[in-house]
Amino acid sequence: MAPPQWVKDLKPAPPQGVDLIQAERDKSKLSVEKLSNFLFTKKVLDRQETILNILKAEKVFDKSQNYFDGRVDRFKTALARAKRLRQLQVKHNWNRDEYMTANELISEPGPYGLHASMYLTTLRDQGTPEQHKLFLEPAESYKAIGCYAQTELGHGSNVRGLETTATWNPEDKTFILHSPHLTASKWWIGSLGRTANHAVVMAQLIIEGKPYGPHPFVCQIRDMKTHEPLEGVHVGDIGPKFGYNTMDNGFLLLNHVKIPHVNMLARFSRIDIETNRYLKPSSPSLIYGTLTWVRSTIVLQSGGVLARGVTIATRYAAVRRQFQDRDAPSGTHGENQVLNYTMVQFRLLPLLASTFALHFTGKAMMGLYQENQKKMLSDAGKVADTNRGAGPEETHSGSDLLADLHATSCGLKALASTTAAEGLEVCRRACGGHGYSSFSGIGPWYADYLPTTTWEGDNYMLTQQVARYLLKSARAVMKGNAPNNDTTKIFTTFLQKQDMGAAHDVLGSDSDLVAAFAWRTSFLTFEALKHRDVEKNSWNSLLIDFWRLSTAHSQYLVVKNFYDALQSESLRYELDPATIDVLHSLFRLYALNTLEKEASEFYSSAAVTVRQIQLARTKSVMKLLEDIRPHALRLVDAWQFPDWQLDSSLGRKDGKVYEDLFYRASELNPLNGLTIDPYPDSGVLVKKDTTASFKSKL
Amino acid sequence: MAPPQWVKDLKPAPPQGVDLIQAERDKSKLSVEKLSNFLFTKKVLDRQETILNILKAEKVFDKSQNYFDGRVDRFKTALARAKRLRQLQVKHNWNRDEYMTANELISEPGPYGLHASMYLTTLRDQGTPEQHKLFLEPAESYKAIGCYAQTELGHGSNVRGLETTATWNPEDKTFILHSPHLTASKWWIGSLGRTANHAVVMAQLIIEGKPYGPHPFVCQIRDMKTHEPLEGVHVGDIGPKFGYNTMDNGFLLLNHVKIPHVNMLARFSRIDIETNRYLKPSSPSLIYGTLTWVRSTIVLQSGGVLARGVTIATRYAAVRRQFQDRDAPSGTHGENQVLNYTMVQFRLLPLLASTFALHFTGKAMMGLYQENQKKMLSDAGKVADTNRGAGPEETHSGSDLLADLHATSCGLKALASTTAAEGLEVCRRACGGHGYSSFSGIGPWYADYLPTTTWEGDNYMLTQQVARYLLKSARAVMKGNAPNNDTTKIFTTFLQKQDMGAAHDVLGSDSDLVAAFAWRTSFLTFEALKHRDVEKNSWNSLLIDFWRLSTAHSQYLVVKNFYDALQSESLRYELDPATIDVLHSLFRLYALNTLEKEASEFYSSAAVTVRQIQLARTKSVMKLLEDIRPHALRLVDAWQFPDWQLDSSLGRKDGKVYEDLFYRASELNPLNGLTIDPYPDSGVLVKKDTTASFKSKL
Repeated sequence: MAPPQWVKDLKPAPPQGVDLIQAERDKSKLSVEKLSNFLFTKKVLDRQETILNILKAEKVFDKSQNYFDGRVDRFKTALARAKRLRQLQVKHNWNRDEYMTANELISEPGPYGLHASMYLTTLRDQGTPEQHKLFLEPAESYKAIGCYAQTELGHGSNVRGLETTATWNPEDKTFILHSPHLTASKWWIGSLGRTANHAVVMAQLIIEGKPYGPHPFVCQIRDMKTHEPLEGVHVGDIGPKFGYNTMDNGFLLLNHVKIPHVNMLARFSRIDIETNRYLKPSSPSLIYGTLTWVRSTIVLQSGGVLARGVTIATRYAAVRRQFQDRDAPSGTHGENQVLNYTMVQFRLLPLLASTFALHFTGKAMMGLYQENQKKMLSDAGKVADTNRGAGPEETHSGSDLLADLHATSCGLKALASTTAAEGLEVCRRACGGHGYSSFSGIGPWYADYLPTTTWEGDNYMLTQQVARYLLKSARAVMKGNAPNNDTTKIFTTFLQKQDMGAAHDVLGSDSDLVAAFAWRTSFLTFEALKHRDVEKNSWNSLLIDFWRLSTAHSQYLVVKNFYDALQSESLRYELDPATIDVLHSLFRLYALNTLEKEASEFYSSAAVTVRQIQLARTKSVMKLLEDIRPHALRLVDAWQFPDWQLDSSLGRKDGKVYEDLFYRASELNPLNGLTIDPYPDSGVLVKKDTTASFKSKL
Repeated sequence: MAPPQWVKDLKPAPPQGVDLIQAERDKSKLSVEKLSNFLFTKKVLDRQETILNILKAEKVFDKSQNYFDGRVDRFKTALARAKRLRQLQVKHNWNRDEYMTANELISEPGPYGLHASMYLTTLRDQGTPEQHKLFLEPAESYKAIGCYAQTELGHGSNVRGLETTATWNPEDKTFILHSPHLTASKWWIGSLGRTANHAVVMAQLIIEGKPYGPHPFVCQIRDMKTHEPLEGVHVGDIGPKFGYNTMDNGFLLLNHVKIPHVNMLARFSRIDIETNRYLKPSSPSLIYGTLTWVRSTIVLQSGGVLARGVTIATRYAAVRRQFQDRDAPSGTHGENQVLNYTMVQFRLLPLLASTFALHFTGKAMMGLYQENQKKMLSDAGKVADTNRGAGPEETHSGSDLLADLHATSCGLKALASTTAAEGLEVCRRACGGHGYSSFSGIGPWYADYLPTTTWEGDNYMLTQQVARYLLKSARAVMKGNAPNNDTTKIFTTFLQKQDMGAAHDVLGSDSDLVAAFAWRTSFLTFEALKHRDVEKNSWNSLLIDFWRLSTAHSQYLVVKNFYDALQSESLRYELDPATIDVLHSLFRLYALNTLEKEASEFYSSAAVTVRQIQLARTKSVMKLLEDIRPHALRLVDAWQFPDWQLDSSLGRKDGKVYEDLFYRASELNPLNGLTIDPYPDSGVLVKKDTTASFKSKL
């Protein structure tokens, strides 16, 4: 609704947000551009700019009704966007990175999401050349739209427990796909609910009554013309969720659906069509590699995910003012910027430090992954990871480096996604009351991100894999047959110094700070080993210890990766000393704040003394907050989120917070098209309804 | 959509949820009925039953489309429900408790919410008899619908900073209400957006150019017939939020709106219409009393709020099975109930303990409030609380008991609402992937509850009030002029024993466990006092210490109140020893788990030794989890939430989790009425749209 002129004439009370945020930027000389280029490269930032301009020019990507639309409308819009995005991809000949950049700018899960990722990837990785021609080619040209159907209503992490069966029929050389119970229904399958006409279905292969475990089968589920479900297929959307509502997560029940032999993806294992015999997987570790890659990607993205919330909350804290400083000299006027309060700094700045810590850790993780990728291809068949929860405890892997990478990716995925998700909620609350408005932009983003803590391995379940690896490594170190890697090194150091005690100068030396984290991991590992191997405690009774151990180890890895990044030559080459100083403060803040939060493990392991912890809290952390505060705004600017991407009133780069909140509420909000009758007994509910006129047209 | 017959014939894989949940109930002999009656009284439970049946019989309260509807539809439905609820209130002559029970069962904020609470209360408490006749009577009979307009776009907690002005005009004996800036817009005002035609507007009173601080004015904002905004009024809904979307939180700008003298609520302060002089408030502490009451109510409700999530997660953890126990003897078949995993117990059972701890604390708090209410009425004018954030540090209150109650309500409000909100999210995640579905019932409930952490005093801001009170008390104890209350007692004990050290047998003695919490509070208080009074640190630099102190003190109060409840005669009279034993285990779990989580404060204060903490974790807590686990299901049953209230597939009392999830997704979900075209270049988005047929008719 258009406001009257006297409303249009109103401005926020001075000082204006524009001036406050500029004054805040003026407090620091840090070069935002150099830091951004160091973090992301100029090439990537230029790409983002180019694609942003393409998207902004298209009406279908207009975001102004995103926060208002209901589920059905949001899904329709998301579908229209997915289609247009595909057209743009073809038109501009975008590669995968460019397509992903566009997706990140749009910032909502779309109905083609699982087609473009898991369906294509699975066909590519697990299909034979014949199957590529048959399934992958039409999928790549969007003539067939698919999804990846693994999880079931009654079965999440435990893939071995899947109920859906694929029974081999030697007579006519077909498989019968079947859902024997309601709990066998595929569930949560992205892009399945309304969009896909094909699915890769993970099902228990059965030959002559004997089960061979879960395998992937391509199954058409909807008519290619009418898009109606085929005979024997019951499929649909699973309903609204806490977030992710632009995606049609679906269910699928199959009633004795027959598919030909060629529909079993056969690159690694297959049925010999002549002998009807099962031929073993030649390289299951490739799947293992994929999962490690997916988890590494989650680690890499977590910094940016969290940085969105930190950017919004930090900018708003520079504009928002509340109360006078109670020790301010009398006669002082005006309220205090919220960012000046230590309680706010204490909530936001360690998260700001985390964004950088996670970014550098993710980059290191990805580097390791790529380095090892070749090795993995030549060294297969040793480690299985179909069971994402808790695999066999004593399995020996041929390549210990792979095992290390696998465990590292599990632990860091859990820590990074938990840190990002919970950090976003801290940012939202740090915005006070307005954080609750959808226009803050944090709540919807948080809600969409949350499933990351559960998928690709539940964050609690994954910690068992980390603990198992650390226990195995500890046993090897004690036996003297451990491989030469960092885990071996820190365990060896611990065993050597265990009886003389540690003297980590955590407040004075960065390398000692890293060593204190390594010491804590080692201590907790050998404690857990004692409980398991000497005291023979049950696995179940140790789950809480394992979770703590995994968290401790992953925190060590983050601290170490941040530390290593600061030692890198490229950093010294690209950044000026003042900027490096600020990054160094962020490193120390992350490490010391973590140490203080986990204090009890640090001193029960004798990694540090009680006095050191007290000093870390009362002196070092407080000093670091003060040091970093003037640079906070430039540090979040360096993350380079365009306003269009953030879609946040509170996080506007120009500080026009209140104008934007008011504009959205007053002029974009469809509920204001509803004039109601307020009296209980009038018999009239709505007097006038113009809500429909607010909807953007596609 | 109706599923085909073969789908209707499907059941979940055995064992069935019905049997699992029954087996779980059979593990305990605890009398659910006795415990429920002890917690709530039979009268209250009977009332709930009666009202539930009345509501269930009314089609307008049918919840089946709640999780699907978009904002506009949800608001319309909520308005229809609010109207019907009012009619039922009149028809059945419900008192306030009965009306509130109905509201709790419906479990959604409604458009009459702020009319029925704050508008009526403010008129009643702050109006003169003349004003009661003029404003209260039509409001009580719903001929006028109102709201309470205090918070502004640029001003939340700091009421003194409000910008809206009410300028006295001695010529025609009127006030001019005016919003001088955009940031003066009233914002977040419940029931204002679309519903109210009146508002109590808090505005800065100005007489002859001089400001007299914020005062309440009744202002009509919409036409009583057309419901259109009056001249000079710009009003509307502020837009979608993370939750609370059935409520029309609104904005309001006023352009020189003239109201008569009688519209300033004048029970406590007013303008003499003859002399044009301001007459001082006769009893500001009544407002103070109201805020204490509101906070006490939040504490009382927090146990039940959290219990909804714990009920849902615990029931689902009894039905859900995942993985085999890895130490199970070979040959064991079937997956393990999730509730058997210690990691799940460790996440859920301390929260189960918290529900009882908060319930008993809330009851004690309410008792104290009522006991003191008379005293407050006769002992007025000493403590002001208009500034909800940080009032004057050294203000002296006439009644120290009042000050104690006030500080207690601030600290407990912060701790209780944070515990409930964050606990609900822990419950949601403990449900694994399905926790993310709206059908879990936890997410929407959590989202609606979240603002409780911000309103009635932001949870971080409130901790300053607690710290200020504790510092003042400590100063009084040191000077020897402290009143005789519990705070004085624990401080005195601490000062006496400070130099010989504490020897709290926290694992062996309940009263020592309580004393350890008291010791920690005292230690932190005197540390903070030293920082402030001796070292002269700035208030701002101590905010983090104050927050820790307030949390510590409030945890002490919860532990103490739970302990006191266990000593009560009524408990011994109403419950059998076995049930009391379980409650005692819950008390110890709450206390020891808190002690372990806050370990570093406990041993840096020397309240306990490092060894005791280690034993608390590895022995006591683990043992308590094992002891409580068989009773978990009956303990949540004792909270007596009807399925209709929980509206949760996962939390169904009968264990039919998977059937319910499937039914809602497959048959109630409007998105499944949409048949789309999946191809990017077809030019067709939707082939068939029957989504509208899913909507329930009002």
